Formats: sequence, C-alpha cells, structure tokens
Amino acid sequence: MKLYNYFRSSASFRVRIALNFKGLPYEYAVVHLTKGGGQQFAPEFRAINPDALIPVLDDAGQRLTQSLAIIEYLEETHPEPPLLPTAPLERAYVRAIALGIACEIHPLNNLRVLRYLVRDLKATDEQKNAWYRHWVEQGLASIEARLVAEGKCGRYALGDRVTLADVVIVPQIFNAKRFDCRLDHVPTVMRIFDHCMELPAFVDAQPACQPDAE
Amino acid sequence: MKLYNYFRSSASFRVRIALNFKGLPYEYAVVHLTKGGGQQFAPEFRAINPDALIPVLDDAGQRLTQSLAIIEYLEETHPEPPLLPTAPLERAYVRAIALGIACEIHPLNNLRVLRYLVRDLKATDEQKNAWYRHWVEQGLASIEARLVAEGKCGRYALGDRVTLADVVIVPQIFNAKRFDCRLDHVPTVMRIFDHCMELPAFVDAQPACQPDAE
Repeated sequence: MKLYNYFRSSASFRVRIALNFKGLPYEYAVVHLTKGGGQQFAPEFRAINPDALIPVLDDAGQRLTQSLAIIEYLEETHPEPPLLPTAPLERAYVRAIALGIACEIHPLNNLRVLRYLVRDLKATDEQKNAWYRHWVEQGLASIEARLVAEGKCGRYALGDRVTLADVVIVPQIFNAKRFDCRLDHVPTVMRIFDHCMELPAFVDAQPACQPDAE
Repeated sequence: MKLYNYFRSSASFRVRIALNFKGLPYEYAVVHLTKGGGQQFAPEFRAINPDALIPVLDDAGQRLTQSLAIIEYLEETHPEPPLLPTAPLERAYVRAIALGIACEIHPLNNLRVLRYLVRDLKATDEQKNAWYRHWVEQGLASIEARLVAEGKCGRYALGDRVTLADVVIVPQIFNAKRFDCRLDHVPTVMRIFDHCMELPAFVDAQPACQPDAE
C-alpha cells in the first residue's frame, strides 16, 4: 500500500495510526500542502485525486479517499486487531466520537478555510487564531461532555481497547497544542491522549517522526 | 424509535431518509434551532445531548448522535434494504462520497458557523452568502469530479441502487437551492438528485413535508 500524505495533516495522521495499529506496512508518498502553492493542486496529484485532498491510500492500484472511509476499509479488509467493537451500540458510540471531531472541529480549521478567512474576509492574524481556538476548544468540550456522559471510558475512549475514536482524538490534540488551544477543560480527552501516546502505533505516526517533517 | 430533529437540518434530513428507506417508523420530536435562541441549548435538550446538536435517535432509551453514525447503526441493526454495498471497495467509495459532503461542505455552513462570521468577524450579509456559496459550489464540484472519475454511477451514485451516498447528497442539494447556489456545473450530482426525488423515502423526508415546516 502507498499513502499519499503530509506529516502535519491530521487526516493523514489518522490513517498512519490505523495502518501502524494493524501492522500494515506502507510506502510514504509526500504531498506537500504549502510548497509551491501546494502540491495537492499539481496536475500529477489531481490525476490521483481530483479533490486535491489528502490522504489517499493506494491499495493495489485502487485509490481510496477520506480518512474515515479509508479506516473503515482497513477494518473490513484487515479486521485484526480491530479498531471497532462488535456491538452496534458501541460501534455507534465510537463512530460518533470520531465524527464529532471529523465533522465538527477539523473542517473549520483546515488550511483552505484559514486562507479564505484571511484573503476574502480580511481576518487579522489575531482573528484567525481566535477562530481556530474557538472551534477546537468548544468542539473538544463537546467531546469531553460526551465521554463523561456515556461513562464508557477506560484507558481509552471505549474501555481499555484502542478504537477509531482514539485514532481521531490524538491528531486533533496535536493540532490543538500547535495552536496553543486551552486543554485544561478536557481532562478525560487528555487522559486518553496520554495513554495513546504510550503506544508505538501512535508515537510512530506523529508528525515529527515522518520523513517530510520540518 | 424517536428522532429529535428539525425540519430544515440537513443532518436530520439524512436520518429521516434512512429511516424511511428501511421502513422504520419513528416518533418526530421537534428541536427548533432558532426559536427562543435555539431549543437545542435548553437544559431539557442538553440532558438528551450535551453537544446541543441534532439529530439524536432514541432507540429503546439508547441515544445515538451524529447522523452518519446513526445511519451505520441502522444499517447494522436493520440491514434490509441495505444502504451500503457488500464489497469493501464499494463501501469505501460510498462512504467517501458521504464524508466528502459531511466533512467538507456541511460543517462550514451550519448555523453556528454563519453566526460566528456575522457576530465575531463582522461579515456582511453579502460576505456571509458568498462564504456559503463558495463552500457549497466548490464542494459539490469535488463530488461531481469524483463521481465522474470513478465511473460507478447509474441512476444513483453507485449503480442503480440507493446507498448512503445518495442519502447525503440530497439534503445538501436542498440547502444549495435554498441559498441560490450554482448547480449547473454538477450535472451528475443533479441527475442523481432527480432520480432520488422520485422515491417516497426521499420525498417524505424533505423539509416541507415535516410537522414543524414553516
């Protein structure tokens, strides 16, 4: 398998964790999101993904997009060790945590949105950073509230086994730290983060350990 | 089952389509998103969902959140008729289309984001509408490009059977029309939309047919 990705992209980071967790080796193909106006917009990459979005997983010539769809695919084709529990209610809980980050926090803070704020809405740097922190801090507070309300946490978001929820939480916390977001209001999320960061699958997938890290 | 939702919410609309498609009756519980500052923020609803987000599906006292997680749950607990194909690659394709809307378009245009633009970034009405149209038109162009590039469309996004992809496309088009977005650049998406709107599961789930429609 070959993963088109970028060290700092948190959607890429999710897929790297899943591949590591399942023990699946992959070739690392760099798509630099800022160099030369963004390699994702180059014709060569558009031929691979017309969306100009990463990550893309190439599995024997089949190209898959959208990090959560890729991870569900890996789960279906390489079920062991699992990233989803077996009971439908627990699967729904895990997916809701993952989507609560992937749909409610991450999309508001990616590069093209921040660029639109600055270029089209003339946001100042201060306003841009306030926007970033607002959605991260509010979004993580929602995740914290859900984790506490459901009462299903152990070392990880669902008991003591790593799931898709953890795979999505960890990259979001890396982003939050990079932008100096408040994190003292989400102790459950941070406890899960700390536990995950004891595991090689997560440690090895982090931005600083990638070949394109700056 | 009981669905906490709002006629105009497109995430709610997705779940209504899925419930209808699978022939599952449900009680319609209104959570009005603008009346009295938003009923989703009321303590009574926060007790149901601390996120203050709809839809919430109550299945025998178990409360599920996040529309795509709810639909996957319905698929697992009520597999017939299916909303996902059986082959992992096709499932990944369907989920990528759904996530391409749920993660790349919808989150940028929901009520709380538009409010932030106006209240905190002092966006004018014109700027707010331009923002809305920008993400919808660009996002749908990406979906169109993917549908065409993959070559899997028939009457619907995957051949001639309705899938989760169609369930997510249709509410997004309703939103796009409501905000007068361009749609002439996405003929494949619109063909799928038109075919879906011949089906009672979709027609009956549309905003205008709900008890709280205005």
